[in-house]
Amino acid sequence: MKALHVDLAERSYPIYIGKGLLADCQRLLADKLNTQVMIISNTTIAPLYLDQLKQALSGYHLHSFIIADGEKYKTVDTYTDIITELLHRRLHRQCTLIALGGGVVGDISGFVAATYQRGVGYIQVPTTLLAQVDSSVGGKTAVNHALGKNMIGAFYQPQAVLADIGVLDTLPGREFNAGLAEVIKYGCINDADFFAWLMDNVAAMQQGEPEAIAVAVERSCRNKAEVVAQDETERGVRAILNLGHTFGHAIETAQAYQDCLHGEAVAIGMAMAADLSVRVGRLAEADKERIHQLLRLAGLPVQLPCNVTAATLGSHMAMDKKVKDGRLNLVLLDAIGHAVVTADVAESQLMATINAFMPSRASA
Amino acid sequence: MKALHVDLAERSYPIYIGKGLLADCQRLLADKLNTQVMIISNTTIAPLYLDQLKQALSGYHLHSFIIADGEKYKTVDTYTDIITELLHRRLHRQCTLIALGGGVVGDISGFVAATYQRGVGYIQVPTTLLAQVDSSVGGKTAVNHALGKNMIGAFYQPQAVLADIGVLDTLPGREFNAGLAEVIKYGCINDADFFAWLMDNVAAMQQGEPEAIAVAVERSCRNKAEVVAQDETERGVRAILNLGHTFGHAIETAQAYQDCLHGEAVAIGMAMAADLSVRVGRLAEADKERIHQLLRLAGLPVQLPCNVTAATLGSHMAMDKKVKDGRLNLVLLDAIGHAVVTADVAESQLMATINAFMPSRASA
Repeated sequence: MKALHVDLAERSYPIYIGKGLLADCQRLLADKLNTQVMIISNTTIAPLYLDQLKQALSGYHLHSFIIADGEKYKTVDTYTDIITELLHRRLHRQCTLIALGGGVVGDISGFVAATYQRGVGYIQVPTTLLAQVDSSVGGKTAVNHALGKNMIGAFYQPQAVLADIGVLDTLPGREFNAGLAEVIKYGCINDADFFAWLMDNVAAMQQGEPEAIAVAVERSCRNKAEVVAQDETERGVRAILNLGHTFGHAIETAQAYQDCLHGEAVAIGMAMAADLSVRVGRLAEADKERIHQLLRLAGLPVQLPCNVTAATLGSHMAMDKKVKDGRLNLVLLDAIGHAVVTADVAESQLMATINAFMPSRASA
Repeated sequence: MKALHVDLAERSYPIYIGKGLLADCQRLLADKLNTQVMIISNTTIAPLYLDQLKQALSGYHLHSFIIADGEKYKTVDTYTDIITELLHRRLHRQCTLIALGGGVVGDISGFVAATYQRGVGYIQVPTTLLAQVDSSVGGKTAVNHALGKNMIGAFYQPQAVLADIGVLDTLPGREFNAGLAEVIKYGCINDADFFAWLMDNVAAMQQGEPEAIAVAVERSCRNKAEVVAQDETERGVRAILNLGHTFGHAIETAQAYQDCLHGEAVAIGMAMAADLSVRVGRLAEADKERIHQLLRLAGLPVQLPCNVTAATLGSHMAMDKKVKDGRLNLVLLDAIGHAVVTADVAESQLMATINAFMPSRASA
């Protein structure tokens, strides 16, 4: 087992990474759990792992609540359903929530934990590659609004994260690849050596090689934890973690979260950010090509889906949280391993990138 | 003008107290406001003071949103209405919310500020005595749930509080008195000299004497700020601020927030807490009598309303946030000016107090 420490003063917490951790969680979480525990999971994951987790935590007073699976259920309605259930079961302020599932379960459970009785303890048990390398680290919690993704939320840290590599065995290949998008992101923004390692090892990961997966999860979490520790509430450097996300969120919003997986939208977004970085004279064309190549190796899309128009995309980007004083802040690359946040992009350059990624053009 | 500083490290903020501050707010808030400003008010206060506030802030890009007046609108629905409006108007993460109104407007606006795009800046402009002395200090934000008051919320500090004594001129007498309940509370829990001062000055306050009101607001805020600075998220000493509130919230929940004003419910709750403190041998009978006397001088109720049953009250108290490991924590008094938090109360003693305050008994 690998253990990482996210350093956030009194909000610091450990991340445990390894195969078979679920069975060992009572020991790993002994000093974190309160007597009352509510496990929140979804209709896909609960049949696979809920009983196992419950058996492993036999010493506690356990409750569970199952939500529907999918980004379109990451809503205020699902959020209030969970709150109502907590109140019905009379869970008090000294309870612990456990999020057993992917990014949606983690984000919504984290927001419940942040706001139920003004804040209760919670543990993340991420069951997708994407959640293990991204959404379980850094304390961003949220639900979506019809007018924008993650528009309602809070910064709220878990008390521990338990990333069991073993549960990825049941993850569909398309979702595994979507998680690789965030893994590749850490290479792009912060870690050129890791990017090179991924070029050589992404195939082994896709074949389910546990050691390769554990290395990638640990290195991704370490990269993210380093950035988050410098800037917990995203006043500055943390914004580089959004590489590909301003484009990606706009794609997801334009599709009402129905077609692209989040990681797929981020992959397209990273390909676009690399393209825009070349257009504004920051990134070498060869580096852009390597990024597109690694994304393709990972089985990820690198052009816009055909149900998205350039105008819709531009409009959704203008609503992004990263808009500051009326200007859109974008994460671009100076090189593989080095990201910058800049508002210094002309509208015409941005639209040139969007147009270049429209399916008609890209296939031309 | 008086100015107080609430000391919470990087979340510290000033409270300005005085007559006519509304007209001067552009100067007072100059370093706090972002370009985009959304004023949130209610149907009672907006016709009286919204234009005045807007004129005083003529240098900003102003929006406003008016919610219905009353505790029963402090709901998730109203909360999401405000969020939707913010998104429709395209307010970005660097906006500022201003809460212009009483405790409900402050609590709900604060929760919006805490969670819109994971947190934006906000300013409190409390327009009731209760909000000036209590809900604008300490960072508790919340909305109600059908199963309990303030069950959804966050700790989130404003960037400044502007308590204009002048706006209390239009406050109905019953609401002014309800605010006195919280003022009296500070005397009871933390400040025996202030309690004695109130015995002599509560009449002057009710006659609208601005100097007496300013002294009481400033001393109340100072008392609260002192306690909050020691314990921002209520892990310990801050709980003494809940004197009368466990009883009070149960009364409000039992009445679906329709009959008693919050301050009136707290007044009854304080009278009951004093009674229970005598029953468990902590408080002298004479001190209980002085507390009941001051509450009556302030025009506040000291017995339960007739539409509440002892069983309902007991049941709602068992749901309170202050329940810890299955035991109800109550704030009791050892003396006027000295509160303690204790779980050391027998069920029979608690029920004896509840029964003693039922209207039939109390009038017997």
